[in-house]
Amino acid sequence: MELKQIYAPVQEDLYKVRETLQSISHVEYAWLSKQLKYVVKEMGKGIRPALTLLSGKSYKYDLAYLLPMAVSVELMHTATLVHDDAIDKALTRRGQATINSIWGDEIAVLMGDYLFAKAGEYVADTQTPRCVKLFSQTLGTISSGEIGQFRSAFNLDQSREYYLHRIYSKTASLFSLATQSGAILSKAPENIVDIMKEYGDNTGIAFQIVDDILDFTSTEEVMGKPVGSDLAQGTLTLPAMLLMERYPDDNPVKKLFETGDKNNVAEAINMILNSTIIDECYKMAAEYCEKACQNLHSLPDKVSRELLHALADYVVKQGK
Amino acid sequence: MELKQIYAPVQEDLYKVRETLQSISHVEYAWLSKQLKYVVKEMGKGIRPALTLLSGKSYKYDLAYLLPMAVSVELMHTATLVHDDAIDKALTRRGQATINSIWGDEIAVLMGDYLFAKAGEYVADTQTPRCVKLFSQTLGTISSGEIGQFRSAFNLDQSREYYLHRIYSKTASLFSLATQSGAILSKAPENIVDIMKEYGDNTGIAFQIVDDILDFTSTEEVMGKPVGSDLAQGTLTLPAMLLMERYPDDNPVKKLFETGDKNNVAEAINMILNSTIIDECYKMAAEYCEKACQNLHSLPDKVSRELLHALADYVVKQGK
Repeated sequence: MELKQIYAPVQEDLYKVRETLQSISHVEYAWLSKQLKYVVKEMGKGIRPALTLLSGKSYKYDLAYLLPMAVSVELMHTATLVHDDAIDKALTRRGQATINSIWGDEIAVLMGDYLFAKAGEYVADTQTPRCVKLFSQTLGTISSGEIGQFRSAFNLDQSREYYLHRIYSKTASLFSLATQSGAILSKAPENIVDIMKEYGDNTGIAFQIVDDILDFTSTEEVMGKPVGSDLAQGTLTLPAMLLMERYPDDNPVKKLFETGDKNNVAEAINMILNSTIIDECYKMAAEYCEKACQNLHSLPDKVSRELLHALADYVVKQGK
Repeated sequence: MELKQIYAPVQEDLYKVRETLQSISHVEYAWLSKQLKYVVKEMGKGIRPALTLLSGKSYKYDLAYLLPMAVSVELMHTATLVHDDAIDKALTRRGQATINSIWGDEIAVLMGDYLFAKAGEYVADTQTPRCVKLFSQTLGTISSGEIGQFRSAFNLDQSREYYLHRIYSKTASLFSLATQSGAILSKAPENIVDIMKEYGDNTGIAFQIVDDILDFTSTEEVMGKPVGSDLAQGTLTLPAMLLMERYPDDNPVKKLFETGDKNNVAEAINMILNSTIIDECYKMAAEYCEKACQNLHSLPDKVSRELLHALADYVVKQGK
């Protein structure tokens, strides 16, 4: 199923999310307004706010609360990207120059803080302390995960468990916030909230595995950033881990991490593409997708059940 | 009155604030625990959490809500300092090496984010969406204020109004959050919340004016950072502004900002100390202190009325 079909029942409300996001650039100061306008210009696929809205459809859909939550989730996502790009000294994101590359690291740090603040304002508008708590816990999980990732850069000694933990922190935790809050704000009973947590956790992991695959298999044109960026920054992702497992004694990832010689990036990409590694990674992602959906049958609403299923399928088919 | 006397009715609870702050370092990962322990080791004078608790005394004091709010306010303060130090490349704070100087800018950014997240968790524990909203708005005010300060560094063309606006954003807004939330969480009527806002706004401005004075009059030993740091970083504060007003054509601030020659810092300090500028600045601070207290007489509780008055007096007498 195409994303357009999956989004159909919430498409009108997703437009409202985008409008609300863009409205945050209406501030007194022209310079701040200009920077904000730039940062909220593109929402990407809007998968996180869509998850909140679709999860809301699983019970009593109430846009008055779901809209600020969806906006909040997307703003938190944007804020973490702005900080990550400053930390990684990234030059492009979604095909555009990053905030840090245009205005410097200092502005990127403060702009990220400002976006966290706006995200906090919107989550307050849900009038639901439980969602505020979840929101804050998620930000804590993301930032401690990023600290872990930064500390483990160019470190060869990382287990698959650690990898899964890391991608849970940096990606799946926010997917989980999106889906859980959707259920909570639509006044779903606890068993439904649990099912939506399971869905968010596992779809998030599947999403990040595929994102890590795409860093090897996609093109700069499609991704809006150079191929092999993760490896070049010393981030060990699943495809690179599998390559190391297959050639433990001598492999370009090991050489790259030990010597810092970036010529090894291209060789690593080449070896990975000419192996069954990518298929294996997609298989793992599909397993998480299955886990995500295993209890969706208990959702009362047939349409949202099917669309959530289709969205998980969409996630693990990207780039295939 | 000494701070110890002013804090007396909330001293026990301030210890609880400190304990709670320190408890955030109890996390699974040893490296994160170590960094957090370092960052929450020193609470300073704890003026912001004290303001929340003392404001709570103005009506129906309820520690179950005031404690997490006080913790939240102090954590937000700490988080902003961690980010500011990274942005300013500051080496010391409160006499200790900064996070950025020990672990690097990247860790400082992420650690600040983590502290914002913890602050968000505690504000969620107040179960009061109005406080969450205020909290988030305050963070937005602080970060947009910092963006303004960063942009205006080494810029000579700044009015007194702009200075006041800037110090409201960076300091007084958080004082105001501390006092307003104290009143809100003690279920004070709206007129009391307004009085506590007026108190927080104006005490905060007075506090920052005095802080800006101390940057010229104090010692590195007392402040825990070099004298003249503001000027060296290109931040135009009230004493430097008054110097420029007195010698518009030729003065060391102008020279510093135009040439970047740091030798002018010592001369600026010298000229300011050998003038009536410092007295004039203290006078301005005292006026804000008076404004802060002008409606305290309407508070129902006599003791907290007097202590809030004493605290405002304490603020404008620091370094005198």
